[in-house]
Amino acid sequence: MIKRTINLNGINKTVVADPEATLADVVRAQLGLTGTKVGCGKGQCGSCSVIMDGKLVKSCITKMKRVQDGSSIVTIEGVGTPDNLHPLQLSWTVHGGAQCGFCSPGFIVSAKALLDENTNPTREQVRDWFQKNRNACRCTGYKPIVDAVMDAAKVIRGEMTAQQLAYKIPADGRIWGTSCPRPSAVAKVTGTCDYGADVICKMPAGTLHLALVQAKVSHAKILSIDTSEAEKMPGVEKVITHRDVKGKNRISGLITFPTNKGDGWDRPILCDEKVFQFGDAIAIVAADTETNARAAADKVKIGLEELPAYMSAPAAMADDAIEIHPGTPNVYYEQKRAKGADTKDLMASAAYVVEGDYYLQRQPHLTIEPDVGFAYFDEEGRLTIHSKSIGIHLHHAMICAGLGTEPEKLRVVQNPAGGTFGYKFSPTMEALVGVAALATGKPVALKYDYFQHITYTGKRSPFFIKLKYGADKDGKIIAMESDWIVDHGPYSEFGDLLTVRGAQFIGAGYGIPNIRGLGRTVCTNHAWGSAFRSYGSPQSFLASESLMDELAVKMGKDPLELRYLNVYRPGDTTPTGQTPEVFSFPELLDKLRPAYKAAVERAKRESTPEKKKGVGVSIGVYGCGLDGPDSSEVTLELTPNGVVLTASWEDHGQGADSGALGTCHEGMRPLGIAPDKIKLVMNDTAITPNSGPSGGSRQQVMTGNAIKNGCDMLLNAMRKSDGKFRTYDEMKAENIPLKYSGKWTASMCTPCDENGQGNPFAVYMYGAFLAEVAVDTTTGKTQVEKFTVAADIGKINNKLVVDGQIYGGVAQGIGLALSEDFEDLKKHTSLIDCGLPFPKDIPDDFTIIYVETPREHGPFGAAGVGELPSTSPHAAVANAIFNATGVRIRELPALPEKVLAGLKAVK
Amino acid sequence: MIKRTINLNGINKTVVADPEATLADVVRAQLGLTGTKVGCGKGQCGSCSVIMDGKLVKSCITKMKRVQDGSSIVTIEGVGTPDNLHPLQLSWTVHGGAQCGFCSPGFIVSAKALLDENTNPTREQVRDWFQKNRNACRCTGYKPIVDAVMDAAKVIRGEMTAQQLAYKIPADGRIWGTSCPRPSAVAKVTGTCDYGADVICKMPAGTLHLALVQAKVSHAKILSIDTSEAEKMPGVEKVITHRDVKGKNRISGLITFPTNKGDGWDRPILCDEKVFQFGDAIAIVAADTETNARAAADKVKIGLEELPAYMSAPAAMADDAIEIHPGTPNVYYEQKRAKGADTKDLMASAAYVVEGDYYLQRQPHLTIEPDVGFAYFDEEGRLTIHSKSIGIHLHHAMICAGLGTEPEKLRVVQNPAGGTFGYKFSPTMEALVGVAALATGKPVALKYDYFQHITYTGKRSPFFIKLKYGADKDGKIIAMESDWIVDHGPYSEFGDLLTVRGAQFIGAGYGIPNIRGLGRTVCTNHAWGSAFRSYGSPQSFLASESLMDELAVKMGKDPLELRYLNVYRPGDTTPTGQTPEVFSFPELLDKLRPAYKAAVERAKRESTPEKKKGVGVSIGVYGCGLDGPDSSEVTLELTPNGVVLTASWEDHGQGADSGALGTCHEGMRPLGIAPDKIKLVMNDTAITPNSGPSGGSRQQVMTGNAIKNGCDMLLNAMRKSDGKFRTYDEMKAENIPLKYSGKWTASMCTPCDENGQGNPFAVYMYGAFLAEVAVDTTTGKTQVEKFTVAADIGKINNKLVVDGQIYGGVAQGIGLALSEDFEDLKKHTSLIDCGLPFPKDIPDDFTIIYVETPREHGPFGAAGVGELPSTSPHAAVANAIFNATGVRIRELPALPEKVLAGLKAVK
Repeated sequence: MIKRTINLNGINKTVVADPEATLADVVRAQLGLTGTKVGCGKGQCGSCSVIMDGKLVKSCITKMKRVQDGSSIVTIEGVGTPDNLHPLQLSWTVHGGAQCGFCSPGFIVSAKALLDENTNPTREQVRDWFQKNRNACRCTGYKPIVDAVMDAAKVIRGEMTAQQLAYKIPADGRIWGTSCPRPSAVAKVTGTCDYGADVICKMPAGTLHLALVQAKVSHAKILSIDTSEAEKMPGVEKVITHRDVKGKNRISGLITFPTNKGDGWDRPILCDEKVFQFGDAIAIVAADTETNARAAADKVKIGLEELPAYMSAPAAMADDAIEIHPGTPNVYYEQKRAKGADTKDLMASAAYVVEGDYYLQRQPHLTIEPDVGFAYFDEEGRLTIHSKSIGIHLHHAMICAGLGTEPEKLRVVQNPAGGTFGYKFSPTMEALVGVAALATGKPVALKYDYFQHITYTGKRSPFFIKLKYGADKDGKIIAMESDWIVDHGPYSEFGDLLTVRGAQFIGAGYGIPNIRGLGRTVCTNHAWGSAFRSYGSPQSFLASESLMDELAVKMGKDPLELRYLNVYRPGDTTPTGQTPEVFSFPELLDKLRPAYKAAVERAKRESTPEKKKGVGVSIGVYGCGLDGPDSSEVTLELTPNGVVLTASWEDHGQGADSGALGTCHEGMRPLGIAPDKIKLVMNDTAITPNSGPSGGSRQQVMTGNAIKNGCDMLLNAMRKSDGKFRTYDEMKAENIPLKYSGKWTASMCTPCDENGQGNPFAVYMYGAFLAEVAVDTTTGKTQVEKFTVAADIGKINNKLVVDGQIYGGVAQGIGLALSEDFEDLKKHTSLIDCGLPFPKDIPDDFTIIYVETPREHGPFGAAGVGELPSTSPHAAVANAIFNATGVRIRELPALPEKVLAGLKAVK
Repeated sequence: MIKRTINLNGINKTVVADPEATLADVVRAQLGLTGTKVGCGKGQCGSCSVIMDGKLVKSCITKMKRVQDGSSIVTIEGVGTPDNLHPLQLSWTVHGGAQCGFCSPGFIVSAKALLDENTNPTREQVRDWFQKNRNACRCTGYKPIVDAVMDAAKVIRGEMTAQQLAYKIPADGRIWGTSCPRPSAVAKVTGTCDYGADVICKMPAGTLHLALVQAKVSHAKILSIDTSEAEKMPGVEKVITHRDVKGKNRISGLITFPTNKGDGWDRPILCDEKVFQFGDAIAIVAADTETNARAAADKVKIGLEELPAYMSAPAAMADDAIEIHPGTPNVYYEQKRAKGADTKDLMASAAYVVEGDYYLQRQPHLTIEPDVGFAYFDEEGRLTIHSKSIGIHLHHAMICAGLGTEPEKLRVVQNPAGGTFGYKFSPTMEALVGVAALATGKPVALKYDYFQHITYTGKRSPFFIKLKYGADKDGKIIAMESDWIVDHGPYSEFGDLLTVRGAQFIGAGYGIPNIRGLGRTVCTNHAWGSAFRSYGSPQSFLASESLMDELAVKMGKDPLELRYLNVYRPGDTTPTGQTPEVFSFPELLDKLRPAYKAAVERAKRESTPEKKKGVGVSIGVYGCGLDGPDSSEVTLELTPNGVVLTASWEDHGQGADSGALGTCHEGMRPLGIAPDKIKLVMNDTAITPNSGPSGGSRQQVMTGNAIKNGCDMLLNAMRKSDGKFRTYDEMKAENIPLKYSGKWTASMCTPCDENGQGNPFAVYMYGAFLAEVAVDTTTGKTQVEKFTVAADIGKINNKLVVDGQIYGGVAQGIGLALSEDFEDLKKHTSLIDCGLPFPKDIPDDFTIIYVETPREHGPFGAAGVGELPSTSPHAAVANAIFNATGVRIRELPALPEKVLAGLKAVK
């Protein structure tokens, strides 16, 4: 141990620590300052940034022995506090700098170090600083962060007061449609928001820490599990294997369609007979400390017989491939699409026919917070599981039988989540901590390190798509043929549904009357497919939006105008045969056209042989909801202090609190109550009703409508004959119920049938994307220099939230286009190696054009937002690369070497 | 476990906790907010105060199951932060509201709750609030706290700005003599100062928690120790007994005088053959949690043969009493006093002779923080012990052999101490945690609960004093005879030295030419005698200052004037034959006289048969130093940022940091550096030189002189031929050493000889005390209504510190006079039962008159201060009770029943 007396946030503190411990661990777990977050644990993400002796350092890689006695350390807690925000913190809340908020403390500390040096940086200097210091954000696309720094600097320089910078509720009291900071913003920017690992730091003494024993191969039979040596290791309470699991030891895949050849019970919680992918959990060590648990996990001996590993769909589809799940074919689901006339003859007679093969890679979610969870038994003896779950009631159903608990003895709670973008649709962590709590009878906690987080969470499933358009002489598409193969990894979880997304979104946006095709879901041994923002659509649009460009090239038509010709207009239907609820595309493209024309001009003007510039467009569509008659439920209760809204509106970081608050405040407007009189109680199956999962941009529509319904019921109950409203006391006096269950069901919807036809969504989001790129022809490296989005997401609830979703969603699309991948199990194991975009990879020049077409079935006219911006921005980038260079990238990501090879081929 | 989502300091937090855990433990150990302190653990002291849902609650007795979901909780961390002090916190620093600071967070939170209700309270309303809410402070005497609240309320009401309230360094840059807040003040008022238990919350994972197995009898032979059942208890790492102690298993009593009949090795660390007092440690359980350790400690079985327990000196002196330490007589030290002529004939011929028997009780220290310590091995393999030690180098020497470590392998560090007042002159905790760390090889931590803290720390040793004065016809005392018996408990530690204090201070202040007497140190089975503020003098002055009053009564003289006649004047010597270094008493009494006369008038005017009012005076003297040529050492080093002062100036809470900073700043004044350029490195035997213990008001004089010496050396080295000073860079360039060892020795002093004669102290402090009381004749309860002190403590370093020491020292004297005791092992086990004064027990009407006679041997003319105010205020109170009622209380405390009995006897 070493003793260090340090000046921590202005106060001298003596700390005793292991010299090999990291400063981050000491500050967090010992000193209790959990504002400093640990993301990657490797100095790649900057979440752990602190200022030591005036210098910005990454505390996750700074060992205590390197901290000198007498050092001065400033953590986020020393930058400012909820009652006394630093201008950076205030500005962060005002500009939406914090979405999930996990990176915010590190960014703010980093920005403070910058402003301590230079109170008047340019935007580019701010971006350079964050780039140099490796501050990574996965939510915001960086622009709001730069905005926040610029305004904070103004306040510091005295050019603006904090009062002027702060958000002010408009005079009419209406926050709907404004840039009201999210309720959790102050907690996030001050480091006082407790994420899972922070709560683990604050668990009661005696909590057991877990470590996984994981497979190091991708496919094998398990011959033996020997825990004897591990059990003798220091601090070990128990080594848990499948033999300790009381239930079915399976996570239910919740098979959606009866034609699925699997039964959905293919995923073990702890592997028993087989290993299906790298990282599969085989045992769990429960010990007094995480260090002891991990050390003991290394001592568990697994006897394996390796089997052929099928690392892609084609491999698993080969004739000689064995069944990964014996008894279930590797191709376990097929989805036809058949709309209108057969396409064979139409293709033969079409004026123009184009076709192509496209591959969208296995995109990693790359949340800054690694996965984390804990479990314990509550005062009613319920197994209570806390995690990043974005579907608490859904997960309750998926893991209950596997654990072997009665449903009423299981409780799932969501922690504040440092980003999920969909991977937390899979309840892996939940099942593991649940098993461990049941096996030990004690509180247990599990944290993945970043390697585990990448290698043992689900990924976006690659699609292999073969697509063909037949168009008339004007370029109007009359027929589409499509085959798509979904590499879904070893577990069936929602694999059928994902395959349906291909039927719904390949070619979506265009009024194509005749469609044929077949999608297939394939079991492989690569990472399991989990939900990811815009689920199924980035794959679909890579094909249909690239091929649209190829058609334009073939015809010599302008790609924007060709799209303008084809987009939905009254009379058209979607690929599933549904009539769009609104026809926004013409207006969206009209509004985008001036920017597009200017971009084309600019590219021509600025292009050089060394730096070729180009412009690409694409369109995107996504539905808001689960397929068919999706529904939601909340409760509204009048209290002496205002209104309590109880809902399971899980937060990825997108702003569930803002969504719920804004909708409820709008719903309660007749009462004229202030936003701070609305208390949100969220995301605990024991106390919040089933509002459905946070996926598919459904919450603003489904739960938003349920909130509106609840508000209406409460207001009706409160309304007096003179139109005024009863007070709480009057309601009590008249014995009128105070609590109402708000519900809504999309009963106008039907799921898609075996031909992929139906009315799956009540509300859609529509967007058009414009990318401007520069390709360095010496290196093949593509830089996106400017981005413009035109979006119709209906009436806007919260401007900060939707801006942030669009900036961040597009940034993920740019990463998808250019760098992100999870293919090589040896290489793709860190944020940098997986291709996460850093600040300079995302354009600061970014414009959003909104078209606010009110939606009939959206509460107060709103649609969702989250999925739209990731539908097809990558296709715009790929199209822009082609426009700049003539190189058509059909398999993403468009890595420099791939573009360079294309450039050589083009020459 | 229960899950609670609470609003903690404005931020929603989810916490999982044992429903039976206290809110204090959850806030501290789980949530890491250690600003909330746990003192008594029984809701008696208010240190743990938090505001829950707008109501002040004591978190140490609030179980988590009583905390409702959605509750709002404000802790000290939510009141304000170092960068953003709440007006209360600012005001606390400005008024010296925080001495040890342990109670400050609780007081400030309590005051906030008051001001939230009423921004304009009267002083009496403030006192009523703290009384009602049981906020206890042992350091300040409460007045500075009330001052702080009143000024904070002005700021809150807008009648004063924070800027106006804040301390400002005078224009000449000199902080010496001003009310500069102590460097640690901000940390203390914001709850960010980490005391021992706070650091324990922040120790590395794997730290073992200790629980003691203690004796429940006062005297016994140990027949057996059975640890087998305890070893099987959950979480137990080891059960440690005397068999595990590698060294002598004794704490050295450091026998001071060769005539001591003991050898000083009488105190076991862990009892082996015998139990000597209630609470004696027999074994230590080391376990993963404190709860597990305590549960296992209950399972250790001790076989005992009980022996007669001698619970007072007379019992242990009885003819048939067995030797408590076989081989050493129970009366193990005798100290004669013989000055001038034999007193026998003088007494016979004296015009007036008075005599009396006096008893001063076993006063408990009643610090708000219970004892605490921890130990670990540092990077050099040194056993490193952190505790509240006020003598780190001294304790190093006292425990080294007992532990069995090499001296260079032992390191002692002081934690910020929540009050000691002397009890931490005894290194009990240090030896126990040292033994446990050596036995387990791991970091270990030990916290006493308040019961343990009271029953197993040392106490002020009772004196039985028989005193006789012979005076001439004018009242001038010509002879004094004194016998004093010291009940020192079972352990010899400094027992001889304490007995010498009787020879030095019985009758001190008066120029008595002829003295005879004998003091005896007696071993008993009651609590061991440890140091306590004003060590030995409260006992001495109870006798000599009461008897002086009795003489005045007998002569019909005014008690103040009789003292005025007798106090030291040039030509007089002290009882030890030393010539006082200054003759302050006439001036002190001259300055006190107007207040005294007004008090006498007031008492006469206001006295009623039901509420009799009276006035009492007393004088007090105490030396600054250890007897004889005491010395100290520090280092001064020039750095690029200023000066680093390294010293072992341990802090009880008195303000070691202010003392060191003020002296060093004054010493470095020629250089003109700002106070914040002086860095203090304090109290770690591995890095701070031996400045001697913090006892006997020695540090300001001894270490103050060493600092001055170091400053002089550094300034000499920096001084250039033109009288200006070299910069750091110039010093480096010229290769002039930057670091200097400042030393000082009181070489003008000699210890007392076998007749109690010598020049033990270079500098003394002098004071006169004036108490005004009201005695309720129906209940016997005494209320001190007003207090005035005239003090000469030389030139004042820091006004806030010395005011605070005097207010607090007198408050302890009032407690000693009226309520405090530790006699009944069954009853005297809590703050309230031990008679701690609460706010309304201490007068708010309190005046200090300073006479600043510069001391030749004090640095910049300063003496010490800490011991003076506790020398004899209790005697003034006892004299006032007599003055009011005619009841002479010769055995303290003057409990109501005792006064009532006296009143009945007088009638």
